[in-house]
Amino acid sequence: MRVRNPRTGAYDYEFSDCTTAQIIQCCKQLRKQQDAWVRSGITNRISVLQEWKQAILVNKEPLIGALATDTGRTWETQAEVDWIIDSIDKWCTIAKEFYDQSPYWMPYPLTVVISPWNFPLALSMMDTIPALLSGAAVLVKPSEITPRFIEVINRTILSVPGLHPILSFVAGDGLIGATMVQQADLICFTGSVGTAKKVALAASKRLTPLLMEIGAKDPAIVMAGADIELAATAILKGSTTNAGQNCLSFERIYVHESIHDALVDVLLQKTAALQLMADHPTQGDIGPIIFEKQVLTINTHLEDAKALGATILMGSHQCEQLHGGYYCKPTIIVNVSHNMLLMQEETFGPIMPIMAFSTVEEVIELANATQYALGAAVFAATIEEATELATRINAGSISLNEGALSAILHSGDNLSFNVSGIGGLRIGKDNFNRFVKKKTINP
Amino acid sequence: MRVRNPRTGAYDYEFSDCTTAQIIQCCKQLRKQQDAWVRSGITNRISVLQEWKQAILVNKEPLIGALATDTGRTWETQAEVDWIIDSIDKWCTIAKEFYDQSPYWMPYPLTVVISPWNFPLALSMMDTIPALLSGAAVLVKPSEITPRFIEVINRTILSVPGLHPILSFVAGDGLIGATMVQQADLICFTGSVGTAKKVALAASKRLTPLLMEIGAKDPAIVMAGADIELAATAILKGSTTNAGQNCLSFERIYVHESIHDALVDVLLQKTAALQLMADHPTQGDIGPIIFEKQVLTINTHLEDAKALGATILMGSHQCEQLHGGYYCKPTIIVNVSHNMLLMQEETFGPIMPIMAFSTVEEVIELANATQYALGAAVFAATIEEATELATRINAGSISLNEGALSAILHSGDNLSFNVSGIGGLRIGKDNFNRFVKKKTINP
Repeated sequence: MRVRNPRTGAYDYEFSDCTTAQIIQCCKQLRKQQDAWVRSGITNRISVLQEWKQAILVNKEPLIGALATDTGRTWETQAEVDWIIDSIDKWCTIAKEFYDQSPYWMPYPLTVVISPWNFPLALSMMDTIPALLSGAAVLVKPSEITPRFIEVINRTILSVPGLHPILSFVAGDGLIGATMVQQADLICFTGSVGTAKKVALAASKRLTPLLMEIGAKDPAIVMAGADIELAATAILKGSTTNAGQNCLSFERIYVHESIHDALVDVLLQKTAALQLMADHPTQGDIGPIIFEKQVLTINTHLEDAKALGATILMGSHQCEQLHGGYYCKPTIIVNVSHNMLLMQEETFGPIMPIMAFSTVEEVIELANATQYALGAAVFAATIEEATELATRINAGSISLNEGALSAILHSGDNLSFNVSGIGGLRIGKDNFNRFVKKKTINP
Repeated sequence: MRVRNPRTGAYDYEFSDCTTAQIIQCCKQLRKQQDAWVRSGITNRISVLQEWKQAILVNKEPLIGALATDTGRTWETQAEVDWIIDSIDKWCTIAKEFYDQSPYWMPYPLTVVISPWNFPLALSMMDTIPALLSGAAVLVKPSEITPRFIEVINRTILSVPGLHPILSFVAGDGLIGATMVQQADLICFTGSVGTAKKVALAASKRLTPLLMEIGAKDPAIVMAGADIELAATAILKGSTTNAGQNCLSFERIYVHESIHDALVDVLLQKTAALQLMADHPTQGDIGPIIFEKQVLTINTHLEDAKALGATILMGSHQCEQLHGGYYCKPTIIVNVSHNMLLMQEETFGPIMPIMAFSTVEEVIELANATQYALGAAVFAATIEEATELATRINAGSISLNEGALSAILHSGDNLSFNVSGIGGLRIGKDNFNRFVKKKTINP
């Protein structure tokens, strides 16, 4: 399978597809080794994961290199790799406390992880590490859009004798994913609603449990008394980091009518300072659109919004092609309404659609009028006012006067609501509950 | 729809089918009232449930009467009703502690409960009560095989002004269930593997979360040093209570070869004392087979076992018809093997297939060789020996030197393994986690 480079548009990488028989064989091997892994105990599993952390540190440069080519961005990739290295320590600490609670909790022997292209490493590791700590064997399939890092990560796995019998990353497309789903005792999926439904349908045939993080359309709400400078800074960051290819991006911005124009002005000034990273992967702010098909989604949302009366104050009217890669400028759009795709469906671009509201009741209704419900943010004069509003927002993780705090803090138990997800807590210490089958022995 | 009486075989009850439009309208009404219910707070919800408990106590006799006609048994029905009345108090106590942990946890607004015919009241209430305490509105559909108690229970609901806007029981078949599944934010299902797969498939289309308790084929393991008298007493009770129509029934009995014959002898003596309840619903020990189609399953399993070499030492070779109802005598079968349906599929009859084993490794392999994994029991000379074995049995709830302790103790956190279930803990205090969407507000 040939792979497109998001910066050049060239198909400059390829991997050979596994066969169904190879995947089934791989699952069989992993299963065979899993019993020894769970019996080895949590202390051993932690020390194997620490060895893996060292191997990742040794291979940090080639790993960042491969991920940077996969995604076309550099700074964010360094942060992603650092976040995962830190996370291994955090998870190991939590795991020790967690598994000391009961010796009778059992893992799902073969856990399958299917992950997307926007954070190829982080989103494949978020489920893999706690699953491994539970005593499961894990087979991971990152997206076929960003597979370059798999070679490097498999090299780190192979260098840890205790790890490679029970962990493997495979490159492959949806067909490989479908075979994995049929073999799994537990399925961890991160990706689109469409694919999630296909996975859930396949899982229903064997009643396989599912953990899913799916789509999002997170709102940011700015109340009349909010600090405009602070809100504008957080919104810009929250909407444009990773060119908006982030499940916790702000994709809908609701501003009280009394400060709407003032906030838009500050946002325009700040946005004007951002540069595309088209000329150099480490210079500028906004990287390429990683997945070519996403360009069509972004363009369709922009076209639809314009046709229904929206005004683009700054940014791109359509994605543009530069040196072969696709880019979307940070884009500020006003006069938007809820009949636009831009306010309903996940866009996954650096786009800030801004809508004025009058009353608290109105903005709660607007914020909750979505099939998605992953995160949200509230900006207000006081923490008390922001908290009161947050309690009424239908979303798992709500930041006050900042964006995406749950991902940054990596604590606080929350669930995805609505179609944004299925299954237990992904962040926070209760996360580990997702990977154990609890057993009670009654004497 | 006409309903068969399990004691007489007569179709002596009927209910009118709801239309799809009525169910959709009912769901809409429940949703509309749910917001006020959740906002009313946990203290109010507990006091409403306590009022309901009083209403159930007032209607205890007609409720037991209807359930006794539904199931053809009396003593077990009295125990079932008492268990539920006690459970309301237990759940209310746990709920207060649970919801005091965070004011930010939200319910699934419309929770749908679909329950089976073997414990018509208990298995519809087990999910309904904690769901109501979470602040959800609940629509319950008990099995169309045992719908007589619905009239009585709806009378108790109507007598509690705070309750009836957010709770309703409906009589109906699978078509009604399918409509409910399409409307639900959370689906709680107890029933067969076949229906569970249909429900999961329908849920996959809207990514609706599922909580399921499905089939079982629980093993009882008797080690060489076990107290034979004690083991035989527990096995007889565990296999024949409710005529074996119990998800936690022992359906496979593995006995160490050194005591196989001795245990069989004691079991034969004890079993000989049990009488069918065919002549009178309060005299005897073994009630009728509630669901007519289950008779075919039992007969098929018995025929298949005999054809493959099993020996029926005592009991029924086929279910027999008495006064119009179907009965299966408590049945002891030896010379069984794992290629028989009787050792693979859920039988749901008062049948004890007994198999000898030689080694610990062998019995663990036998006990775990099933697609089901709900409960199990181990009988051994010491609690230490029994515990050690229990840690290696693939099941959520394991009793030592007794049967079905998790249902009796109503504590201890456990999950169903394999196809026996999906979703969180049903018994134990963590049970309440299943009904909340956890929200974190990060200041």
